[in-house]
Amino acid sequence: MEREALRALLDQVRRGEVEPDDALARLAALPYVETPNARVDTHRALRIGLPEVVLGTGKTAAQIAEIAGALRAAGQTVLATRVAPDVAEAVAARLPEADYDAAGRLLWLGPAEVPIVGKGTIAVVTAGTADLPVAHEAIGVARRFGNKVEVVVDVGVAGLHRLLAALPVLREARVVIAVAGMEGALPSVVGGLVDRPVIAVPTSVGYGVSQGGFVALLGMLASCAANVSVVNIDNGFGAAYVATLANRL
Amino acid sequence: MEREALRALLDQVRRGEVEPDDALARLAALPYVETPNARVDTHRALRIGLPEVVLGTGKTAAQIAEIAGALRAAGQTVLATRVAPDVAEAVAARLPEADYDAAGRLLWLGPAEVPIVGKGTIAVVTAGTADLPVAHEAIGVARRFGNKVEVVVDVGVAGLHRLLAALPVLREARVVIAVAGMEGALPSVVGGLVDRPVIAVPTSVGYGVSQGGFVALLGMLASCAANVSVVNIDNGFGAAYVATLANRL
Amino acid sequence: MEREALRALLDQVRRGEVEPDDALARLAALPYVETPNARVDTHRALRIGLPEVVLGTGKTAAQIAEIAGALRAAGQTVLATRVAPDVAEAVAARLPEADYDAAGRLLWLGPAEVPIVGKGTIAVVTAGTADLPVAHEAIGVARRFGNKVEVVVDVGVAGLHRLLAALPVLREARVVIAVAGMEGALPSVVGGLVDRPVIAVPTSVGYGVSQGGFVALLGMLASCAANVSVVNIDNGFGAAYVATLANRL
Amino acid sequence: MEREALRALLDQVRRGEVEPDDALARLAALPYVETPNARVDTHRALRIGLPEVVLGTGKTAAQIAEIAGALRAAGQTVLATRVAPDVAEAVAARLPEADYDAAGRLLWLGPAEVPIVGKGTIAVVTAGTADLPVAHEAIGVARRFGNKVEVVVDVGVAGLHRLLAALPVLREARVVIAVAGMEGALPSVVGGLVDRPVIAVPTSVGYGVSQGGFVALLGMLASCAANVSVVNIDNGFGAAYVATLANRL
Amino acid sequence: MEREALRALLDQVRRGEVEPDDALARLAALPYVETPNARVDTHRALRIGLPEVVLGTGKTAAQIAEIAGALRAAGQTVLATRVAPDVAEAVAARLPEADYDAAGRLLWLGPAEVPIVGKGTIAVVTAGTADLPVAHEAIGVARRFGNKVEVVVDVGVAGLHRLLAALPVLREARVVIAVAGMEGALPSVVGGLVDRPVIAVPTSVGYGVSQGGFVALLGMLASCAANVSVVNIDNGFGAAYVATLANRL
Amino acid sequence: MEREALRALLDQVRRGEVEPDDALARLAALPYVETPNARVDTHRALRIGLPEVVLGTGKTAAQIAEIAGALRAAGQTVLATRVAPDVAEAVAARLPEADYDAAGRLLWLGPAEVPIVGKGTIAVVTAGTADLPVAHEAIGVARRFGNKVEVVVDVGVAGLHRLLAALPVLREARVVIAVAGMEGALPSVVGGLVDRPVIAVPTSVGYGVSQGGFVALLGMLASCAANVSVVNIDNGFGAAYVATLANRL
Amino acid sequence: MEREALRALLDQVRRGEVEPDDALARLAALPYVETPNARVDTHRALRIGLPEVVLGTGKTAAQIAEIAGALRAAGQTVLATRVAPDVAEAVAARLPEADYDAAGRLLWLGPAEVPIVGKGTIAVVTAGTADLPVAHEAIGVARRFGNKVEVVVDVGVAGLHRLLAALPVLREARVVIAVAGMEGALPSVVGGLVDRPVIAVPTSVGYGVSQGGFVALLGMLASCAANVSVVNIDNGFGAAYVATLANRL
Amino acid sequence: MEREALRALLDQVRRGEVEPDDALARLAALPYVETPNARVDTHRALRIGLPEVVLGTGKTAAQIAEIAGALRAAGQTVLATRVAPDVAEAVAARLPEADYDAAGRLLWLGPAEVPIVGKGTIAVVTAGTADLPVAHEAIGVARRFGNKVEVVVDVGVAGLHRLLAALPVLREARVVIAVAGMEGALPSVVGGLVDRPVIAVPTSVGYGVSQGGFVALLGMLASCAANVSVVNIDNGFGAAYVATLANRL
Repeated sequence: MEREALRALLDQVRRGEVEPDDALARLAALPYVETPNARVDTHRALRIGLPEVVLGTGKTAAQIAEIAGALRAAGQTVLATRVAPDVAEAVAARLPEADYDAAGRLLWLGPAEVPIVGKGTIAVVTAGTADLPVAHEAIGVARRFGNKVEVVVDVGVAGLHRLLAALPVLREARVVIAVAGMEGALPSVVGGLVDRPVIAVPTSVGYGVSQGGFVALLGMLASCAANVSVVNIDNGFGAAYVATLANRL
Repeated sequence: MEREALRALLDQVRRGEVEPDDALARLAALPYVETPNARVDTHRALRIGLPEVVLGTGKTAAQIAEIAGALRAAGQTVLATRVAPDVAEAVAARLPEADYDAAGRLLWLGPAEVPIVGKGTIAVVTAGTADLPVAHEAIGVARRFGNKVEVVVDVGVAGLHRLLAALPVLREARVVIAVAGMEGALPSVVGGLVDRPVIAVPTSVGYGVSQGGFVALLGMLASCAANVSVVNIDNGFGAAYVATLANRL
Repeated sequence: MEREALRALLDQVRRGEVEPDDALARLAALPYVETPNARVDTHRALRIGLPEVVLGTGKTAAQIAEIAGALRAAGQTVLATRVAPDVAEAVAARLPEADYDAAGRLLWLGPAEVPIVGKGTIAVVTAGTADLPVAHEAIGVARRFGNKVEVVVDVGVAGLHRLLAALPVLREARVVIAVAGMEGALPSVVGGLVDRPVIAVPTSVGYGVSQGGFVALLGMLASCAANVSVVNIDNGFGAAYVATLANRL
Repeated sequence: MEREALRALLDQVRRGEVEPDDALARLAALPYVETPNARVDTHRALRIGLPEVVLGTGKTAAQIAEIAGALRAAGQTVLATRVAPDVAEAVAARLPEADYDAAGRLLWLGPAEVPIVGKGTIAVVTAGTADLPVAHEAIGVARRFGNKVEVVVDVGVAGLHRLLAALPVLREARVVIAVAGMEGALPSVVGGLVDRPVIAVPTSVGYGVSQGGFVALLGMLASCAANVSVVNIDNGFGAAYVATLANRL
Repeated sequence: MEREALRALLDQVRRGEVEPDDALARLAALPYVETPNARVDTHRALRIGLPEVVLGTGKTAAQIAEIAGALRAAGQTVLATRVAPDVAEAVAARLPEADYDAAGRLLWLGPAEVPIVGKGTIAVVTAGTADLPVAHEAIGVARRFGNKVEVVVDVGVAGLHRLLAALPVLREARVVIAVAGMEGALPSVVGGLVDRPVIAVPTSVGYGVSQGGFVALLGMLASCAANVSVVNIDNGFGAAYVATLANRL
Repeated sequence: MEREALRALLDQVRRGEVEPDDALARLAALPYVETPNARVDTHRALRIGLPEVVLGTGKTAAQIAEIAGALRAAGQTVLATRVAPDVAEAVAARLPEADYDAAGRLLWLGPAEVPIVGKGTIAVVTAGTADLPVAHEAIGVARRFGNKVEVVVDVGVAGLHRLLAALPVLREARVVIAVAGMEGALPSVVGGLVDRPVIAVPTSVGYGVSQGGFVALLGMLASCAANVSVVNIDNGFGAAYVATLANRL
Repeated sequence: MEREALRALLDQVRRGEVEPDDALARLAALPYVETPNARVDTHRALRIGLPEVVLGTGKTAAQIAEIAGALRAAGQTVLATRVAPDVAEAVAARLPEADYDAAGRLLWLGPAEVPIVGKGTIAVVTAGTADLPVAHEAIGVARRFGNKVEVVVDVGVAGLHRLLAALPVLREARVVIAVAGMEGALPSVVGGLVDRPVIAVPTSVGYGVSQGGFVALLGMLASCAANVSVVNIDNGFGAAYVATLANRL
Repeated sequence: MEREALRALLDQVRRGEVEPDDALARLAALPYVETPNARVDTHRALRIGLPEVVLGTGKTAAQIAEIAGALRAAGQTVLATRVAPDVAEAVAARLPEADYDAAGRLLWLGPAEVPIVGKGTIAVVTAGTADLPVAHEAIGVARRFGNKVEVVVDVGVAGLHRLLAALPVLREARVVIAVAGMEGALPSVVGGLVDRPVIAVPTSVGYGVSQGGFVALLGMLASCAANVSVVNIDNGFGAAYVATLANRL
């Protein structure tokens, strides 16, 4: 990997500036930050200027603080997702600079302001009020990743005129993130109304058959709109990540 | 059951016109037609004036002919569903009056014309061309059951203006049957546009996750439109049956 | 949509009474009530005289109060479903007129008495005692929607004579709502005994394979009775909504 | 195992009539018939006087003939289940005594008449005509196992009076086998009407959600009737086997 | 139903001893006990001398006490299953005679001693220690139903000699109940070792793929031993009920 | 929709150049091509210059020819997907200009050469040889949609050096389509190696648990690489569509 | 079983040193420790020198203490898995020698030091930090079973260079245990990099589709690397057991 | 990867014997054979002396011949799995040296005799006759990989004495492959009887719930025997591969 770095290294070996054994060690030492319980891949973030992201699910507050602290010590900006309020509090007790976005359950350790680097707007649209927590994850991440974000809430397909009233916002976006639970039909309808990539996020909102989000997920995958691609249930972060990359194209 | 008939029977017993043992036999003898391989319940049909319906799935041509013949001999009109063309041919070889509707895979033994007894129109709307076979089952059954039927084809939700152009037809219907495969979002959108009961029919049309119709089925059950109820996958017959009863209310 | 309103608007534009840009804005402004976290579609309710319905699942007490308050301010009657007791209490602390039906988990903001507008009776029948919470949702909604409701409890199919004793009530109903968990066989048997539409509601009651309600749901969809259509698991509200529309036909 | 045989063997060892090594070999040599492709357990059949049963699924005609021939050579009666007509023909070409029951797909190599040894009657009842193939497997096996069998066909729960007319037959049976596809509600209703063990056999009959028989299976397991136990989908043989053992109690 | 009772009634009608309208009322009044929230079918229990059984799942203590009290008032013995300790305590506060079996979660209102009426022994065998709660439900119910019960614990198939040591108990039983979680292989092995009906009870014991009991359930249904039939997951009660009926044959 | 067109229409109404009723009709008449069995939405294609796409699944050759012929008559370019060879032949018999891509099962009616309008390269990478049919659908569609496409075949993750050798191609692409069956791990690994959006296409290739493609689908949705979004199983067309839109950003 | 022991026993019988009935009793008495709630199979452990293992899931502290105490009294070393902290505390209150490994949730009653008997090293590698609890179960068990263990943490496939840096450790291992949740791709990649058996352990780590561990499990089973075999979700114990046996080959 | 080769290469670069750009090219050029439709990883096989394996599923005869021919041309031995008879014939028409094992559906291009390099015996044991095709894949692969193989057929757990008779063979094996369909209990029982790693192969043999092999798979994963690990359904090849590696430890 890292073709240019590798070529430079090999040139150094050739000129005798680097011992082969040292070169070997360096090859196996692309940047990551190692802590007692993790090896955080800092390779990509360095290259494309995104903050490091730590998935909070399944990690204790101590582990999150350990990882975030090591990254901060290495000069990295850190964004932790899926951080419950009590965990956030415990992390902040150790790392006072931590800034918690309760709506999106995001913990941020970095500059208060992030410059806009995305080329256009990302629209985040939700089918219902109950989809807001997932939408807030997407919104918070997209903003921390340097995008301008527009939000349209509660425009489910059973009341089409609510959605049609929001069309101007959707049509001016460069990428659309559509968040929906229950039957997950929103991305199909939105996909038919805009000419941009639509990233569909199923949510675990609902009851009966829609509990857990599988119906929304499968409905989005089976969408009759061809400009729709899908991420994991409740994965607002992933949608924002993909949208960020598309918004930089 | 049959409160009045039972009371009459008991009166006859009381007056000594009927022996108790005979009464007992009669009680266990509400009308049905028995053949070597079936007992066809002719009770309801007699009462509400619908033809007898024979489900063709899993029956041989010989069995269908046996049952239909016995019913015809008993003076009943017969409608057989899910009859493959070769089975239809084999039945017709034995019962020449049989009239086959290839599009709906329906076999009919009865009068060529059925009078309209439904109070209004049943609209049958499909999301795609590939949903037509199921729609034709619903259309054929609804017509044989004495309903006026309007049909709107290929108005999937990814091209909303096609559906909006058909709104007048939908809004003038007394009951709507919405037939869709893939993500099954059509009933949700139709449900939001009309004030009538919408009977949703998922179809097994699709590939990948939507193969077999479960995604459409579950999406319809999870629908955010409250006026939608659902029948089994590919069950055009059932939708037409429910719609017929509603259209007679 | 709204053909007549649109025609009137266009006439006004033609006569120069309305500017085209204003017309455009109006077209995108069919009635809904917007709050910080929701856009409630008030379009249908206005037209057919039903109260607004807010699904409580996944909403905080603050959000429900925000939405209900805005609707009340706009002169709407409000019915909220799936409201837990503590949430109901918190909403009532903000909106004292709120009336809570604990059995059906329904919150009502509107006139104490609702006139009967349904043409006949809706019968609600349950297979077991444990199905009562879902039945109470259906009963409460149907009554708030202006229907006369009859209730038959605990007539599961393994003790048929209990059901047969209730036949007179079922046969006099215009629409039947059948609520059952476990194997969900009640609608099939009821469907065979009445000539009216039967709306089947599977419940999440049961253990082992029937936990969560999927067995009851699938059994109802596979029902051998043709007059049965199905709504989502535990969806007493949806059943009452469909029954209300059918009872007004 | 085989406590008495083992004790006898040990006695022989003690008396020096059998060498320990020979005893060891015998212990590992309880009766089975070994062929190139099978080891048929003849242990139980010998003891309880049932014919050997060979499951035809996944076996070639050559393998079935090989096994059946070896068993016949060892003096055993043989019953092969799930034998397709062409396989039966190929086996019969090698073993001319083979008698094929096409309705139950059973191949029989043994005496034409089997004496009745069951203490009472086994009733086999089916929900529909399409369940007949599975019922015929149960009927054929139960008769070959020495039971008196009564058959009631096509008494699905949506036409209850058909079932009630058959009650005398059901109530006189010692064990009931209830065969049903679709929603599989028949055993629940039958279970409520008789005081005997009901063995439920789900069939793969049906379409949409009921295709493959899982809905019927799960519905039977979730049955609200407590006297119902269940065997695998389409397993008429297993039901007949259990019923045979119960009928000998 | 109730052929003899019906005939007697009809005779009375014939002799003028009973008015037809009264007869009609009686026909719809086969015995059940009606309470505000339940209709308990007392028909079967009366006839075959078993106590009434109330399923505790999904019922409040108030409802259980209401039903049990009404049954006791009607002279019935009552057994309630799946009663949590706190619910049992609340019921006992209202009905002091209630006797709680904590291991089997059974509540009993009836005579302290139940006479043995089963013809032989029912063996209850479990694969592991963790299966004991389900086994205790089966054991407690079988004893309250008048059976002699033998118990063999923790003889899973990975340590066969433990099972072989218990063979004498299994072989002397008239019916065997085999209780197992995880892969549920115990009934297959037991089924191969005894010549009696084996009723398999899958338990929800296990983790990973076996969590919830579906693997054990499906494994038992797929069993290669033909004398095995299966009840719902954790359904110790149902197994004991079927075993009781078989033990009275 | 179509804000500008609508405003223009309203201006015409205002100036009296168009009658309100005509305006109403036009509003419901956004462009689509109606045939006996379909309503093809030509709205989007016109606007963004993509050919019309007809999904071949579930359509007869006659229906495809009917739709394609109507579109051609309306001056549209047509691309039909999932066209089996015999269907393609039958369509070509009616529409001789039809050009069939057997590897991708695509039927094309339009200019032989399509100009490149995508801004960069789309890389299509497959895990195995058996994934080629799906990849060819993506490749063929992407090329017909005016993209430069690079293809890398058979670089599954169990032989990483094959993938690493292809890194230069992947890193120069603007969008990557990763096609994989079995466990579907390729997109995760590719996603970690490039900084571009990766569109994952699960294939139905595999046996046992991976048969049908669900394991690959779910694995891709659960991917630990954040730049991955997913389309339906075997949906090479959808992946190419999303990639085309991204490649035009 | 136990060929040699059996032969010795039979020799004793032959020589009249053992009565046949006593021999019979001994045969049924291969070693196990019986307690009120369990029969612990001590047969294998004795033979191959592993400690006894008690699965803590579904057992009370009293039961674990009962079983462990009986085993200790019989001179056995005991390892209990899946023991929650409060249960461990309760057991230790009764058996003070109990040593609790909180990270692996393991309870140990035996010598503080276990000699190394495995021939080489077992490498335990995890995809993420959240997989550590399962890895710790494997690590703790493998060490208590006498293996040298190397641990590599957090080397998921989306950051390949982290994994490549750990290659020397993996390549020097005799057996590799790969622990991963989410899409479970780690074993496929590791399997391609080493020539040793890889035992894959799916974890229940993840959210959305990967919740519960089924996606990781299925992905590992579908792995394109042929040297991978799989154990149950979260089954670190089983992986360590298999690895121990392989490490002794 | 390939630490020593890499170090050697770097030494050459240092000494100026190799240009850095050439080194870079070589690094990306670990051995694989590229054909029009495949890149076969020859890296591992070269190193550990196993033949190349080509998975036949989803490949045409032309593709298999293309790949096998290229590998042969490169001096490799080739084993193709899951090759249907007609495909084998078509390949053999192009590559006459191809040797087809119809029972295992294996195609072999290499020396007629393979020397034994495994240290002990691999035992392959099947539950039934119908599991033979999968067993033959395992047997054929294990032999072509240089192992001594012992085979035990048809020893399902419902006839334990058949299995016990085969114990000597199982106990002398170094690794056991247990092949079973239906409920898949064989590996649990075998695992309890031997002290070696048991590799379980579920087969798709069975009907009803066991159709497709998922019940056997899940049962094996849930096995109460700790020395069992599992491969994909019908994956005889994978089991033989893992067993081969273990047999070389």
